Amino acid sequence: MNFMSDTAAPAHPAVLSAISDANVGAAASYGADVWTERAREALSRVFECDLDIWLVGSGTAANALALATLCPPHGSVLCHAEAHIERDERGAPEFFTGGAKLSLLPGLHGRIDLSALRTRLAANDPDFVHETPIHVLSLSNLTECGAAYRPFEIAERAALAHEAALAVHLDGARFGNALASTGATPAELSWRSGVDVMSFGATKNGAMGCEAIILFGSARQRLADLRVRAKRAGHMPPKMRYLAAQMCAYLKDGLWLELAARANASAQAVAKCLVDHGGDLAHPVDGNEVFVRLPADVAARLKSAGVGFYPWPDGSFRFVCSWATTADDLTALGKVLA
Amino acid sequence: MNFMSDTAAPAHPAVLSAISDANVGAAASYGADVWTERAREALSRVFECDLDIWLVGSGTAANALALATLCPPHGSVLCHAEAHIERDERGAPEFFTGGAKLSLLPGLHGRIDLSALRTRLAANDPDFVHETPIHVLSLSNLTECGAAYRPFEIAERAALAHEAALAVHLDGARFGNALASTGATPAELSWRSGVDVMSFGATKNGAMGCEAIILFGSARQRLADLRVRAKRAGHMPPKMRYLAAQMCAYLKDGLWLELAARANASAQAVAKCLVDHGGDLAHPVDGNEVFVRLPADVAARLKSAGVGFYPWPDGSFRFVCSWATTADDLTALGKVLA
Amino acid sequence: MNFMSDTAAPAHPAVLSAISDANVGAAASYGADVWTERAREALSRVFECDLDIWLVGSGTAANALALATLCPPHGSVLCHAEAHIERDERGAPEFFTGGAKLSLLPGLHGRIDLSALRTRLAANDPDFVHETPIHVLSLSNLTECGAAYRPFEIAERAALAHEAALAVHLDGARFGNALASTGATPAELSWRSGVDVMSFGATKNGAMGCEAIILFGSARQRLADLRVRAKRAGHMPPKMRYLAAQMCAYLKDGLWLELAARANASAQAVAKCLVDHGGDLAHPVDGNEVFVRLPADVAARLKSAGVGFYPWPDGSFRFVCSWATTADDLTALGKVLA
Amino acid sequence: MNFMSDTAAPAHPAVLSAISDANVGAAASYGADVWTERAREALSRVFECDLDIWLVGSGTAANALALATLCPPHGSVLCHAEAHIERDERGAPEFFTGGAKLSLLPGLHGRIDLSALRTRLAANDPDFVHETPIHVLSLSNLTECGAAYRPFEIAERAALAHEAALAVHLDGARFGNALASTGATPAELSWRSGVDVMSFGATKNGAMGCEAIILFGSARQRLADLRVRAKRAGHMPPKMRYLAAQMCAYLKDGLWLELAARANASAQAVAKCLVDHGGDLAHPVDGNEVFVRLPADVAARLKSAGVGFYPWPDGSFRFVCSWATTADDLTALGKVLA
Repeated sequence: MNFMSDTAAPAHPAVLSAISDANVGAAASYGADVWTERAREALSRVFECDLDIWLVGSGTAANALALATLCPPHGSVLCHAEAHIERDERGAPEFFTGGAKLSLLPGLHGRIDLSALRTRLAANDPDFVHETPIHVLSLSNLTECGAAYRPFEIAERAALAHEAALAVHLDGARFGNALASTGATPAELSWRSGVDVMSFGATKNGAMGCEAIILFGSARQRLADLRVRAKRAGHMPPKMRYLAAQMCAYLKDGLWLELAARANASAQAVAKCLVDHGGDLAHPVDGNEVFVRLPADVAARLKSAGVGFYPWPDGSFRFVCSWATTADDLTALGKVLA
Repeated sequence: MNFMSDTAAPAHPAVLSAISDANVGAAASYGADVWTERAREALSRVFECDLDIWLVGSGTAANALALATLCPPHGSVLCHAEAHIERDERGAPEFFTGGAKLSLLPGLHGRIDLSALRTRLAANDPDFVHETPIHVLSLSNLTECGAAYRPFEIAERAALAHEAALAVHLDGARFGNALASTGATPAELSWRSGVDVMSFGATKNGAMGCEAIILFGSARQRLADLRVRAKRAGHMPPKMRYLAAQMCAYLKDGLWLELAARANASAQAVAKCLVDHGGDLAHPVDGNEVFVRLPADVAARLKSAGVGFYPWPDGSFRFVCSWATTADDLTALGKVLA
Repeated sequence: MNFMSDTAAPAHPAVLSAISDANVGAAASYGADVWTERAREALSRVFECDLDIWLVGSGTAANALALATLCPPHGSVLCHAEAHIERDERGAPEFFTGGAKLSLLPGLHGRIDLSALRTRLAANDPDFVHETPIHVLSLSNLTECGAAYRPFEIAERAALAHEAALAVHLDGARFGNALASTGATPAELSWRSGVDVMSFGATKNGAMGCEAIILFGSARQRLADLRVRAKRAGHMPPKMRYLAAQMCAYLKDGLWLELAARANASAQAVAKCLVDHGGDLAHPVDGNEVFVRLPADVAARLKSAGVGFYPWPDGSFRFVCSWATTADDLTALGKVLA
Repeated sequence: MNFMSDTAAPAHPAVLSAISDANVGAAASYGADVWTERAREALSRVFECDLDIWLVGSGTAANALALATLCPPHGSVLCHAEAHIERDERGAPEFFTGGAKLSLLPGLHGRIDLSALRTRLAANDPDFVHETPIHVLSLSNLTECGAAYRPFEIAERAALAHEAALAVHLDGARFGNALASTGATPAELSWRSGVDVMSFGATKNGAMGCEAIILFGSARQRLADLRVRAKRAGHMPPKMRYLAAQMCAYLKDGLWLELAARANASAQAVAKCLVDHGGDLAHPVDGNEVFVRLPADVAARLKSAGVGFYPWPDGSFRFVCSWATTADDLTALGKVLA
């Protein structure tokens, strides 16, 4: 029973099959292969629009490259105080941008508070040389607290950002889970709500290691810059086809949405089980993550039974389900707690 | 007949099998899994010493991370004027180090000239605040011209570097080919000759995408710093097991040396064929690369037959063989030229 | 009546005389001159200890160079949410450190809250690769709100920092004003209370443009690194004697403390005058700055009379006195308000 | 007899007078004062065109800020192999640009060889993602070897650069000396010959510490970016008037050209004296610097007499004259050698 992280899960068999299928003959290097183009086309269909992409092997790389493409070294990025880019990426955004600043906003359940956003934007003066003006708003969906933004919530934040001449970035490491939770379409939860550039995660939901940076609309003009930055950061793998094949398999026939729905359902079951045994949810369980405060004896019993989960800085515990969480895992958890 | 690059080749079936074998159950994230430890142990056996490693998905990442671990922002790295880190990595070393400088040396066939090295080191004054002192010597084996350094050639350069208090880095993107060519052991061609940190390539010789940064001897103290830099650069993939499994399969039962020898033999055949038809070798064919000046009509005939090869800045042409080059490829090349 | 900033004031005549006196004959370049050594000795006497220095022309340069000497690119600096290094230096610390992060703490009147500091340090784990660990605590005295820390307040914060293996930096752009206010000695308010490196400001209090970075105790080992960083940042002026001469004159016979006391007294008079006319002090007036909420009609009257002052983000107004504020200025202010 | 460097010289009395004259009353901070505007106007008159400026305290700051304004982190700057920005600025261009590369060209006497430039530009491919394309050509006048470019020589290099879509930077640390030597006008030797941005030095020729970055023509659009970068680098001194006053005095009534001519004449006298005693000039003496190979006994006699000069990496010796070199200095040198 490993609920440590969805990154502990293996890859879905379809992803491995696709890699084997791609392992034939010579292919152009550095993303000029046919699989990479197919991945772009598949994402275009999924998002119902033409778009540009770059594929990388980690979410940190996707986020940091995306932000570096949008924010100059002397600018700043607005994000939630608990955002992954602030808390868990060891300063990667600062590194990739050449020293830009992250400016933090509060908000319940990892969602940026609308009124705090409005206040912060009102104080932004791009022409005042001494302060660091904001160039980007970065949202995460799922949030770091496992909550989902619905399309209108993305849209109202993005609209404020655009009025203030900011670009909008979305960290979609668990985008599939947000879709499964909200019932929105990919387009509704991204560009139709004002997202310019997104990090589209597949690794946590069935891939071996593949994240797409997606450029929408006018942000597509930044593709050449993005490729240069990727190259310079060692994120232009020579045999790109093996990333692209993963993405194609991930998207094919809605596999990703099926896997996300499965992980979300498992999280619901885990949450119910923990609440039934005295757990107190710290955040809504909108996706595949459960944040829960536990009676000391319950936490102790889980630990001694070898159940894997993670203590969170706020005193709660995080349980993460994945596509690979099984009915047996859920049953076993119930037995430990019974 | 694709002789464009060894990065165009597919992965060896054993590498894919190993990935499938690793695709079972939950595994610790970020390199704490058993496959990563196995890869470290396998490299220790191959190099006949204890060592530390980090795995990344591109040679640029391996080189730039290695150099950033050895060179401060206000220092410089000595390398050959045609080194990959200078010519083909879009300033990745400068990016990862925070602005260190590459300082270039001449030398035949991509080997750093010993006397030029001696002169440059004699002028180095680490205490003179205005100039940028040298902290690292970076060698490439195979060189960018396809030549191999033999162990004593590495050793004499490394000895000069160490006398001047420099660290020694080896770009071993085609290290297997250098071994197959020189008959040296991995240890002889690396730490026994004075190499402190190396980029050990597998991608060009049968992996999907896997390079190891190897820390030898006292350089192992830099592992924590290296991991931090890797994380910050997006080169700490959550599911590291899929990189590690590749490395394990690559090394198992000497597969890598067998593949390198095969690629080298193909290159010899290509070279012979081209020379027989008027080609003039620009550099010794020590590994899997052939640099050759061609009569205009020969080059034209090859092009119109759809043979893939690459014009080089010095006016010659580069033909690269890989483990996947077949006897049919060689026969077909002969037919085009006949 | 210009209360905009103490940087609007001219230099004290003694500073200009000293520059003229230094303007004789040839002098060694880049800080190897006798005036620079004299400035170091004068600061040693003032601080009652041996120390090392570097002189620069702006407070931003002093702070950013000091921090870059103490914090690696992948570390972070703790400071107050309203600290000058966060709010008013356009990301200079991020630039000079190569992308380190500022991590913000709350606290009344610009003083870092002790309990927030304790909590933040308790959560710091330098060995956790994903987060950005803290390497430095940066305090400002005067704070950005014009309040002074007394020696024991510096000491209790520095002690917590040292227990957590952090270095302690002090932004002393208005250090003279803090001394004049608290009655402490320079040593008591710096190294005796645990400060490792400080930015010692002279520009706002009578110099033309001169700030010293001072290294105390074991931080003196960082001098060579500091000089390299200064050179690389264009902060090694060839004719350093003209900075050093300013510092010598500034310190001579306690001129700096006299000027600071004068500015502080003026601020007391301004504060009294504004409070008498309905002003409400936002912060204690410990030094030469007054932060005050004003009735709308009072603010309007001051503005229309051409009095120079600055609206602050929190809705108050900032009035700054300097050594050059005259009795006439204070009388005139009274008349406008009468 | 100090011929070590023109930076060892004091400031001209007119420069100090101007500082005293500026030391009256309050002035707007950070370059918004009237003296800074007057300096801009004075430079406009001198260069016969409208232009924008920024003032800094060192040549390294001027060069590095100028280059950072013209070159992205992933680009490169072409310069002479012996250029000050390559040899003597401790990687400042790399630091300010965020890791751009300097790409070196040969040429006699520090002048970039025209045919090497043409060849290098022909190989430049801004769209090839793996290499680092050139964005800027940086020339120095005087060169690092003390030679002057004449206007047509600047123009032919700048024309090639512009054809290749590069910007042209001029390091004019000794621009006055180049003018005095060539008889050209400031305009002829800068924008009329194709210079986009220049570092205009005053420090070596009579100022205390003042260099102007000058933006010509369409490069003026980069002023806002330049100011941001200057702020972020600590090169926006609060009391800018003291830099500006120096520049105004330096330019007034052609003082700078008079001082440069005087230094050049002294250098001619030094050169003659050294040649008369067996010296062999390594480079033409176009300005205030003499590079000369000396018989061992002559060098020894000079040293033992306490004459200050500098051994150069190529085995010659550098003697630098300044505006402050006196007839007595020259006579004394003659006596030592007699």
